[in-house]
Amino acid sequence: MAAERLVVIGGDAAGMSAASQARRLKGPDEMGIVAFERGHFTSYSACGIPYWVGGDVEQRDDLIARTPEEHRARAIDLRMRTEVTEIDVAGQRVRALDRETGETYWAGFDKLVIATGARPVRPALPGMDAAGVHGVQTLDDGQALLDSLDRAPGRRAVVVGAGYIGVEMAEALLKHGFEVTVLNRGEQPMATLDPDMGRLVHDAMDGLGITTVNRAGVSKIITGADGRVTAVATEEGTYPADVVVLGIGVEPETTLARAAGLPVGPHGGLLTDLSMRVVGHDNIWAGGDCVEVLDLVAGRTRHIALGTHANKHGQIIGSNAGGGYGTFPGVVGTAVSKVCDLEIARTGLREKDARAVGLRFVTATIESTGRAGYYPGAQPMTVKMLAEFRTGRLLGVQIVGREGAAKRVDIAAVALTAGMTVDQMTALDLGYAPPFSPVWDPVLVAARKTVQAVRAAGV
Amino acid sequence: MAAERLVVIGGDAAGMSAASQARRLKGPDEMGIVAFERGHFTSYSACGIPYWVGGDVEQRDDLIARTPEEHRARAIDLRMRTEVTEIDVAGQRVRALDRETGETYWAGFDKLVIATGARPVRPALPGMDAAGVHGVQTLDDGQALLDSLDRAPGRRAVVVGAGYIGVEMAEALLKHGFEVTVLNRGEQPMATLDPDMGRLVHDAMDGLGITTVNRAGVSKIITGADGRVTAVATEEGTYPADVVVLGIGVEPETTLARAAGLPVGPHGGLLTDLSMRVVGHDNIWAGGDCVEVLDLVAGRTRHIALGTHANKHGQIIGSNAGGGYGTFPGVVGTAVSKVCDLEIARTGLREKDARAVGLRFVTATIESTGRAGYYPGAQPMTVKMLAEFRTGRLLGVQIVGREGAAKRVDIAAVALTAGMTVDQMTALDLGYAPPFSPVWDPVLVAARKTVQAVRAAGV
Repeated sequence: MAAERLVVIGGDAAGMSAASQARRLKGPDEMGIVAFERGHFTSYSACGIPYWVGGDVEQRDDLIARTPEEHRARAIDLRMRTEVTEIDVAGQRVRALDRETGETYWAGFDKLVIATGARPVRPALPGMDAAGVHGVQTLDDGQALLDSLDRAPGRRAVVVGAGYIGVEMAEALLKHGFEVTVLNRGEQPMATLDPDMGRLVHDAMDGLGITTVNRAGVSKIITGADGRVTAVATEEGTYPADVVVLGIGVEPETTLARAAGLPVGPHGGLLTDLSMRVVGHDNIWAGGDCVEVLDLVAGRTRHIALGTHANKHGQIIGSNAGGGYGTFPGVVGTAVSKVCDLEIARTGLREKDARAVGLRFVTATIESTGRAGYYPGAQPMTVKMLAEFRTGRLLGVQIVGREGAAKRVDIAAVALTAGMTVDQMTALDLGYAPPFSPVWDPVLVAARKTVQAVRAAGV
Repeated sequence: MAAERLVVIGGDAAGMSAASQARRLKGPDEMGIVAFERGHFTSYSACGIPYWVGGDVEQRDDLIARTPEEHRARAIDLRMRTEVTEIDVAGQRVRALDRETGETYWAGFDKLVIATGARPVRPALPGMDAAGVHGVQTLDDGQALLDSLDRAPGRRAVVVGAGYIGVEMAEALLKHGFEVTVLNRGEQPMATLDPDMGRLVHDAMDGLGITTVNRAGVSKIITGADGRVTAVATEEGTYPADVVVLGIGVEPETTLARAAGLPVGPHGGLLTDLSMRVVGHDNIWAGGDCVEVLDLVAGRTRHIALGTHANKHGQIIGSNAGGGYGTFPGVVGTAVSKVCDLEIARTGLREKDARAVGLRFVTATIESTGRAGYYPGAQPMTVKMLAEFRTGRLLGVQIVGREGAAKRVDIAAVALTAGMTVDQMTALDLGYAPPFSPVWDPVLVAARKTVQAVRAAGV
């Protein structure tokens, strides 16, 4: 019997994790594995790009977890600079285009993994493609931006978007000595937080010397005679710019999959079952930034582009495709980030998320510190908690603070996964010692106050 | 109707939290609150003493959360330097001895709170009371030690005991320029960890210049002609010492309660129900370091002297005594500490704890880093995980590492509370960004390896 053929589309976190895990379970005699990657790199940390651009990470290659050669050494037939242009589901084959040679060919599969990732949102505005305007989605993007920073005629940078990438890039540009303005379409930066918490980020960015302009929708990129960006225009004003970084967010890259008739959800991502199999297709899996995931708190799917999910997906897909077993139950929506020493974290639902799915809730916000108040270096931390009306079930937590703020959200992430009430959370046996926490951990303080809010809301 | 009388024995975390919470619920017209404290201070952080001695915390008073005057301003009749010498349960009164005046008197109660704390273990060895030999249980102890360090004829310090207090005091003495030797009765320092993890602490302490002698039972304190300590003798050798710090641990202070016929458990602590009421007594509560708490993982009681539990107990007791409602479900055994920049954490059961309660288990140990490997400052972290044989239920986690190691144990603390399996833990949606975690959080890596160990152990 011929070896089974596994084809993987996309050579980054999800795709190559799937290929590697399948290879662990099935040797080359049992399974041939072909992976197609249209770009120049495999298995790299896109999340690390802002830190490379900012100079915290020295070299581009530090972000590469595994090179093409390393994958090939594990008997994965990895074809770089090769784009899959069509999936023939019924014919069990994909059409590949070698971007170096221009050659196209069909490759047959018994099992298929779709890991086509996400693409940055680039609004169709005048000047979007001007020199000096940069996305930061790929390593190539990062290199282009670094080169552009060197060539920039002045030191004024505009970041469009104030989400994770936007604020991280603001820090990176600050480190390059740029005067940084962040143009934010929303009410406050970090729209992944409620506006009252986003306000704290805004204030902290002010303190760092980063100018944030809220409710600023970009209308145009203005260019000079040389074609290079000179300013960014909104309806309210014009912001001079020697370089522009786009951090507007990403959307699932599912063009291929849609063309093949595979099911996509309300957020444009592929729909899978718990084993990461594409709904309705026994031999096709999908994972990473191109799929929608079940939000366990909201009870519906979301699109979240995050390396940690992509790696989990890949591992599970590889197990299942390789004859093992694994499932991905869903997410609770945890995300952490930082701007300089300001740490930002969230998990679960924001107020508007809860409203959108019909949950009635109460909130409580507390101020505490990451260490005992008397311990040197104790810094303020604000914790906001949402709990369901009546039941007191935890719905979400947002934290903005300094050292120790970000990863504290993991406490809430586990509690959400377990379906705990805020009352149960008040009894949690969390680590306490003066260098690491006040005697009441900030999360416990927030839980206690939220319990009171639940009670005050009545039954 | 006369106001109800609440009497509190012990003016530290549990006792004064109880008094304060009861006062919040009942005004002075409804409830009279008398609190007796035999020492000089109230509501202070004993956990902070090593950091005050080490100079991280500047002043003794920084450790005091609330002074006697502050308590009195809230209508609590706090009687300092007044020791309760007898509890007359049937007569509903306590006998008090004013240590300033020598006067004794009876005070009646309708409701009683016992918060007598813990006392340091001081083995009855020759020389234990010599000048230069110090416990570090109270603020007075801390001051005496600081004075002694100034007077010490040389710079050699011996710490007896290598638990939390022992290792924290080793750091404090190092900061005072002492050459520090830790004499440890056990196989490795930090007996709250399994020996394989304690070994990592030992190695790190070596690296810091702290000498740790394991399996070293102290037989004698040797003194000079002036009566001051000159050395500590074990069966194996003699260790010159200009100052000796005892960090051997504590035991519940329940002399009074025993004399009154109140029930104590196998570890010498008072036994309470879930509302922190002393078993068999409707109007007597006990909390803090003088009680045993239910270990939710082991299914039996333990004695844990820790400020965070004491504060929770006090808050719950005050609610119940004040006509409100609260319960303390138990602990999972979380504890965190540090020696210089080495962070040490544990939760749940060690191997020997699991064995002692009849649990069969598997373990896995992994090495990872607290940040993405490529992010500057990424430092090694070792995570050991225990899971139950067959069921895969999480039983315990131990972490030794640098920045970010200690509070990561909270993830496991919540998972233990929720009764999660290690398989469920592999899907946890934990915060990921390069400055805060590798793409697979070390706890997830440990969970994955433990899942494999559970499977490998068969069914």
